[in-house]
Amino acid sequence: MKFTPKDKDYINKVRESFSKQKFMDYLHARLVKTEPGFCEIHIPYDENITQQNGFFHAGIVGTVADNAAGYAAFSLMDKDSSILTVEFKLNLISPADGELLIGRSNVLKYGKTLTICRSDVFIVKDGVEKLCAASQSTLIELQNKSDEKK
Amino acid sequence: MKFTPKDKDYINKVRESFSKQKFMDYLHARLVKTEPGFCEIHIPYDENITQQNGFFHAGIVGTVADNAAGYAAFSLMDKDSSILTVEFKLNLISPADGELLIGRSNVLKYGKTLTICRSDVFIVKDGVEKLCAASQSTLIELQNKSDEKK
Amino acid sequence: MKFTPKDKDYINKVRESFSKQKFMDYLHARLVKTEPGFCEIHIPYDENITQQNGFFHAGIVGTVADNAAGYAAFSLMDKDSSILTVEFKLNLISPADGELLIGRSNVLKYGKTLTICRSDVFIVKDGVEKLCAASQSTLIELQNKSDEKK
Amino acid sequence: MKFTPKDKDYINKVRESFSKQKFMDYLHARLVKTEPGFCEIHIPYDENITQQNGFFHAGIVGTVADNAAGYAAFSLMDKDSSILTVEFKLNLISPADGELLIGRSNVLKYGKTLTICRSDVFIVKDGVEKLCAASQSTLIELQNKSDEKK
Repeated sequence: MKFTPKDKDYINKVRESFSKQKFMDYLHARLVKTEPGFCEIHIPYDENITQQNGFFHAGIVGTVADNAAGYAAFSLMDKDSSILTVEFKLNLISPADGELLIGRSNVLKYGKTLTICRSDVFIVKDGVEKLCAASQSTLIELQNKSDEKK
Repeated sequence: MKFTPKDKDYINKVRESFSKQKFMDYLHARLVKTEPGFCEIHIPYDENITQQNGFFHAGIVGTVADNAAGYAAFSLMDKDSSILTVEFKLNLISPADGELLIGRSNVLKYGKTLTICRSDVFIVKDGVEKLCAASQSTLIELQNKSDEKK
Repeated sequence: MKFTPKDKDYINKVRESFSKQKFMDYLHARLVKTEPGFCEIHIPYDENITQQNGFFHAGIVGTVADNAAGYAAFSLMDKDSSILTVEFKLNLISPADGELLIGRSNVLKYGKTLTICRSDVFIVKDGVEKLCAASQSTLIELQNKSDEKK
Repeated sequence: MKFTPKDKDYINKVRESFSKQKFMDYLHARLVKTEPGFCEIHIPYDENITQQNGFFHAGIVGTVADNAAGYAAFSLMDKDSSILTVEFKLNLISPADGELLIGRSNVLKYGKTLTICRSDVFIVKDGVEKLCAASQSTLIELQNKSDEKK
């Protein structure tokens, strides 16, 4: 699907918001690609973010899926809007056993108030990508309420 | 609902698994209560785990909901079983703006293979608890495959 | 939780909308109870609404969960509002094998725009109620757009 | 993705199960296409299955999404297996206002026990197809328990 972002400078808007998320910094997450209605985020392996088997924790898998969805949606929104996740549903498909976690999300429907995204999460092990999770999210656009620190 | 855990020593089984999750340690998360079919986990505020407004990141809210569900379910399982989250769905209800995040989860149905849990996530601000998220999860019991590091 | 409906005549508002749903009539569904933030709907067994094993079809189980959630939420809304389901997630917990299907839903959070509900679906067999499904839903209030046939 | 069905005669296995669902017959639903890991089902408009605005009821939208997912997954399973929906999550994206409802589902991951599908539901109005809902489902394969009426 092809989308036209309301804010021509959407890439900087997304980058700026991403850079304000301290948790992304903490995870050494990188915003790798932003297109109208699409976003890709990478999180490198770190022992600190693992579960009992030494794989990426499901909470981190959810984080990359949710954040990719949020920025895929945010890329289309007004300059003066902020965004919140309403809800997301995540299926964990394979163990997140590898050196890099990749979240890619596409907007399925950009609505006046609500936006629906689908995200795929891939685990990269020895350079090979494998689908490890899939999610579907609902996001809400809050108009005239730009995205700022409290 | 009243459940009878298959492993009488379920509290230690849960504690041990929790202690192996490096991510919980990293978050200074505390396993506050474990009962048959119930679990409560606390995560204190830390600037490192915030989103763009300075609140707990949605990924952390999802983490506490998912982990509480996982250990609520795990409390009922066989000594030699391990557990995986199949999927979860999370509604973010209020901003997670406060000093402490609490996840509480109850098993709704403990089945032979699959277990269903509902979790509530509360944010504590100035000592007052407020519901900030609600989730519903599906977990799978892997028998004769105890929960170990790879 | 205790809710105060915005429309004092909420019971008739809900009844009227329910009576306009031809599908409810077709299913001989009954609106059994409406309270502020709560709704209960019954659907009697009929061979016409079964799946391959002769149980209530999962689509009917989803219908009763979704509709109970919709009317639980609608009970709190403005007289001139209409309501739409944004999304719902349903876990099928036990076979819907019995003579009556009961959907009960409670509002978890009534927000300015979005409302979150949890529904439980019970199957009654030989007079005994058993939990057969559980759902979590998001609904949206459309203000000044009363609920009418196109 | 390309899948190899375990049962070479998967088309007849799916058709036979579909034909046993009385609810599909009642809805005049048609199994339009079955491929390994894919299924398409059509449900024609009927006033009897509408909600308060005269559109297809959300319960019917959920039915077509769930059933398409079920048969997409079932197409890959053993001859002697039966299938149950574990859970599904459905986003309603546009009003289901039209003459025909189409559910199309693809298997995302076919696992030993669990299968994950994504479904898209389209509404056809005056011959034009429009996305009206999207879902993500988890299904379970019950081996050596063929799909029969109780």
